[in-house]
Amino acid sequence: MTRVIDGRAIAGAIADEVTTDAAALRARGVTPTLAVVVPTDDAATAWYVRSIERTAGKVGVNCRTVTLTNPTAAELIDTLDELSADDTVHGVICQTPLPDGVTLADVGEHIAIGKDVDGANPASLGRLAIGLDTFAPATAAAVAEILRRDEVSLAGAEVVIVGRSTVVGKPAALLLLAENATVTVCHSRTRDLAAVCGRADIVVAAVGSPGLVTKDHVKTGAVVIDVGTNPTEDGGLVGDVDAVSVNGVAGALTPVPGGVGPVTTILLMRHTIDAVTHPDAG
Amino acid sequence: MTRVIDGRAIAGAIADEVTTDAAALRARGVTPTLAVVVPTDDAATAWYVRSIERTAGKVGVNCRTVTLTNPTAAELIDTLDELSADDTVHGVICQTPLPDGVTLADVGEHIAIGKDVDGANPASLGRLAIGLDTFAPATAAAVAEILRRDEVSLAGAEVVIVGRSTVVGKPAALLLLAENATVTVCHSRTRDLAAVCGRADIVVAAVGSPGLVTKDHVKTGAVVIDVGTNPTEDGGLVGDVDAVSVNGVAGALTPVPGGVGPVTTILLMRHTIDAVTHPDAG
Repeated sequence: MTRVIDGRAIAGAIADEVTTDAAALRARGVTPTLAVVVPTDDAATAWYVRSIERTAGKVGVNCRTVTLTNPTAAELIDTLDELSADDTVHGVICQTPLPDGVTLADVGEHIAIGKDVDGANPASLGRLAIGLDTFAPATAAAVAEILRRDEVSLAGAEVVIVGRSTVVGKPAALLLLAENATVTVCHSRTRDLAAVCGRADIVVAAVGSPGLVTKDHVKTGAVVIDVGTNPTEDGGLVGDVDAVSVNGVAGALTPVPGGVGPVTTILLMRHTIDAVTHPDAG
Repeated sequence: MTRVIDGRAIAGAIADEVTTDAAALRARGVTPTLAVVVPTDDAATAWYVRSIERTAGKVGVNCRTVTLTNPTAAELIDTLDELSADDTVHGVICQTPLPDGVTLADVGEHIAIGKDVDGANPASLGRLAIGLDTFAPATAAAVAEILRRDEVSLAGAEVVIVGRSTVVGKPAALLLLAENATVTVCHSRTRDLAAVCGRADIVVAAVGSPGLVTKDHVKTGAVVIDVGTNPTEDGGLVGDVDAVSVNGVAGALTPVPGGVGPVTTILLMRHTIDAVTHPDAG
């Protein structure tokens, strides 16, 4: 039987720490505040923002949701600039989809490094690569945090990451490289994905392809982190890992839902708390 | 017999292109100018700066060397800010060693993105990771350029990079990932370096350890790029690859000297020319 890594339990432990830290800040007169810019009326986005607001409320982080209806690029960027300059705001994130003509990098460049709690600024990614104090994208940070909290040995371990996105694959590679893992990044052009994944002590699936990773991709006993969140027709979510197939082969697996997702959301709160005292803070 | 990849010949071909482009710019009244900030009287640095000046002179790039004697951090940073704002300067690089208390990242943050022809600004590295138009560190760019000019197939190839530095290992990984290679980054904590390298179609040795990579690390026919420049007691240079050992095993090898080095220097000139028309140019 493959052990299930309980992302909700890990998120709960982090939430306890964040709650304590948030209370300490409030006792000092600081209200840790996360600004969530929502430049869309997309229903899935609204659902996700509500879950951020709920988590924030539970741990004592103030969530300031700024909804913009059909903003122009300039309006969105002005909003981000204002929040970056606002001393009462400690973290700033921006939801997608973005207005036409605006890229994530455009948006990111207008979030101050010290408030960039979801690592959207290209400079944050560069600082991460260099090993400077900076915020990684929360999903990538969640991968590393789950491995750390689950006490998975990283130094010298072979990690294979499937997916090379800017928000997960590449920053996760940088984070795990910094933990002294030997890191391979795979993608759609990788020749024999099963063989490459089959070498790994740890497989991170972050490609957005339901059930792509099967027992053929997993060495016996390997730890599998499933970052996929693929919507199903019946309104559910499935990961990039075929959990039934890898069961009994993988040593441990994060489920979807209930794995990387809840840890990602609470790490936005952790980062917001850390942003209050970040050297580059406002 | 292992084929030698002639870095000087590749550099010569690039120099011809750069010479043509520099002449065209001069005909338009633009003198492509590279500012080289030298915050040290280190002899090895002076030797390297002279080689940059010589290369610049040959291809028609104006080289403005700014030597600072025992500068404070503030003086160095002021100089970089001034050059970043100077319309007659298109590329800015800063040599090491740096004054006490100044890091490469500090320096890099004061080189404008559009003039950062050696990819020293953390934001340049982040932009590289995202795939935005930006300058990679010249040494990492030289690795990719040699493979491209030598017509080594990268899509789907297994690349193993030994070394995870900010100036070579990590940016080379990003560049080759963008060319659709499957990329593994190794380092001192990698468990079985020979076995990991032995899987590679292309090995990039960038670790600064003389002769570390031997025939035990190289699959028959693999292409080996030697980025090492380790000084010898007799004033010569040796690479990270034991060229005698891998001879007859590797399919092709860049020599040291005469491999990555000359391509790196000419790419600083290529980047300076490109900086004249870069969208973020001052």
